[in-house]
Amino acid sequence: MAAAHRLLVDIHTHVYLPRYAAFLRSRSSAPRIFTRTSPEGKQEDRLLILDDEPSEGRPVGPQYWDRDEKLKFMDRHAIDVSVVSSANPWLDFLPAPDAHKLAEELNTDMEDYCSAGPSLTALPSAKRLYGFGLLPLVPGASADSLVSTVVQISKLPHLKGIIMGTRGLGKGLDDDALEPVWGALEKAGLVVFLHPHYGVDKDAWGAKDNGHVLPLALGFPFETTVATTRLILSGVLDRYPSLRLLLAHSGGALPALSSRLSSCIEHDPVVASRLTHDARYYLGRLYFDAVAYGAEELGFVSDAIGRADKYVTAGTSAAASGAGATDSVAQRRLGSGRMLFGTDHPFFPPLGETEKWKSVVENLEAIDGVWGWTEKEKDAVRGGNAFSLFSLGS
Amino acid sequence: MAAAHRLLVDIHTHVYLPRYAAFLRSRSSAPRIFTRTSPEGKQEDRLLILDDEPSEGRPVGPQYWDRDEKLKFMDRHAIDVSVVSSANPWLDFLPAPDAHKLAEELNTDMEDYCSAGPSLTALPSAKRLYGFGLLPLVPGASADSLVSTVVQISKLPHLKGIIMGTRGLGKGLDDDALEPVWGALEKAGLVVFLHPHYGVDKDAWGAKDNGHVLPLALGFPFETTVATTRLILSGVLDRYPSLRLLLAHSGGALPALSSRLSSCIEHDPVVASRLTHDARYYLGRLYFDAVAYGAEELGFVSDAIGRADKYVTAGTSAAASGAGATDSVAQRRLGSGRMLFGTDHPFFPPLGETEKWKSVVENLEAIDGVWGWTEKEKDAVRGGNAFSLFSLGS
Repeated sequence: MAAAHRLLVDIHTHVYLPRYAAFLRSRSSAPRIFTRTSPEGKQEDRLLILDDEPSEGRPVGPQYWDRDEKLKFMDRHAIDVSVVSSANPWLDFLPAPDAHKLAEELNTDMEDYCSAGPSLTALPSAKRLYGFGLLPLVPGASADSLVSTVVQISKLPHLKGIIMGTRGLGKGLDDDALEPVWGALEKAGLVVFLHPHYGVDKDAWGAKDNGHVLPLALGFPFETTVATTRLILSGVLDRYPSLRLLLAHSGGALPALSSRLSSCIEHDPVVASRLTHDARYYLGRLYFDAVAYGAEELGFVSDAIGRADKYVTAGTSAAASGAGATDSVAQRRLGSGRMLFGTDHPFFPPLGETEKWKSVVENLEAIDGVWGWTEKEKDAVRGGNAFSLFSLGS
Repeated sequence: MAAAHRLLVDIHTHVYLPRYAAFLRSRSSAPRIFTRTSPEGKQEDRLLILDDEPSEGRPVGPQYWDRDEKLKFMDRHAIDVSVVSSANPWLDFLPAPDAHKLAEELNTDMEDYCSAGPSLTALPSAKRLYGFGLLPLVPGASADSLVSTVVQISKLPHLKGIIMGTRGLGKGLDDDALEPVWGALEKAGLVVFLHPHYGVDKDAWGAKDNGHVLPLALGFPFETTVATTRLILSGVLDRYPSLRLLLAHSGGALPALSSRLSSCIEHDPVVASRLTHDARYYLGRLYFDAVAYGAEELGFVSDAIGRADKYVTAGTSAAASGAGATDSVAQRRLGSGRMLFGTDHPFFPPLGETEKWKSVVENLEAIDGVWGWTEKEKDAVRGGNAFSLFSLGS
């Protein structure tokens, strides 16, 4: 794997596989793809993900489903490998039997999408495309149906994990009914990429027209934060110690609120002493994409990961553990081992014509600008960590 | 003010003034104070802030309304000065005329609470208690009523600002109807302490009993984040450049999501180019309490404040501005100038008997543990910044 240490790997990059895109086009309510006459009088395709979405959704085109467009985007940004995932809302809106059938079809499609794609010149044992599969996580799905789809995915050699929303079977991810699914995922060694879709109650955004800014900038990270916190509180991370969970958008607000979370847990008679560890410990068990658009943000996320071992026993305070300010740089470097570059392509396209997408450039500049990371940590975040986490090329 | 530079000032500490506590006791729906027989068979007073609150609310007692209890708490934790604010939900649930009358009565009560309290031995020109006033910010309140209450507060010498929730007149703080209020507050030089109460839609928390953890640890910071973001997007900070806004709980998730916010704004045709500056610039205009319970969190908040000037013009990237990693420590020190120690007393009481409250100790340890801050920055956060921001003792 020596050749891999300078490769750029995008682990947060989406697709609507052609079968899914065609299905969205056949629908008359969200999620759907439809053609409209734009305000400028042109015919254009739009993607409406939620019924109440502002601005009649957003432009959609071949960058969402065409593999050649993905590869062109990768080449333009010097991305060697992409671990591609279906974009939200996945199968959330389907009846359970339909979701199960479409999940398995799309998993096979994703395997074909990756395996029929090019290999990596620098490392011919590796492909340029790997994928995350889908589970039929909808109300009414049986544990058997979910576990059988986990088994299906585990047999598809280019699928390295699954992408998962936050609703589970309708009651969220802290639902006891999901226990067999966590067990099956842990046993299969599949990475769970936890990704938001719903945000929070839209009443929070008020009456002003702020486009997609509030649901995307705040609602998405809030949703991921709530879902992960509920997982921590339910003990899933205690019961499945080898489960590998990768959080979208650098875990949203979870790192920034993790000490507050710890304090609230310790001060609440209902949950104090329920967890095996201080809440902050669990952040060292998680993986985080590096999609936060700022160097200070990434540095802080790595701090929150790197300090986690100080909180291995509930109630241990930072001061009591003896670790002090002199360890801060080492702690920050340590945390980088669980962070992975991503782009969120094809979302966040530039509004005007540009050679490179600003959203990608910003995330690369952010990694490069993290105070305390050496080139070794930066290389790891840009690609080395992904090679390890997903066992790419092996 | 030389003597003030080593004093400890608590700017996030709450009270239900006796008039307000009596009023809560007279009510039969939330918010209310009521007496129940505890599961252990004892008579106990409970505070129910929201109707759907878990665990029949929380214990309440003299620490909420008795000035001597506040002073005892201060003495026990070596807090020299407290800038006291009414606890949520303030007047939010009252009809406008009642809210106006009670606001003005409570403002006078708060002035008496402070002025009749002790002076500071180390600095006799200063009192040990200062206060935030209340505005009757409820649906139906007229701008005239609000502005007249701002004028009332500005004439009460120990009131240094107002505490404000996020609902405004019912439509949030980005409501055009609030323009005269921002103008009056700016003109009066009153600090606006923005504090959450509602959290987000309780459906987000799921069916498991997690006590108050999710609404307090996540809902509160989300609410502050949304409200402040909506203020930024509405241009209030551009139109009132001298308005001083202090955010509870270190701004919640705003610092951690500020680069994502900037990116979402720049990529959305509805709001791109609407703001005078990059979203991150505005964080350097705000003040943040240091109530985040962790040193890494405080360090990051100071990074987000300290970098703000790099974003003075919308679209300027960190790389383009020429500021690099060698400036990171200076940037972190700079940011400390807008952060202020707080306790959130009398909330977060210890579950068992302890000499000092863990919530207070944690916040002091956090300040002490911030990598890159010297004693000068730590002293400023512990008290010096509060003396300056609130012109205490002058």
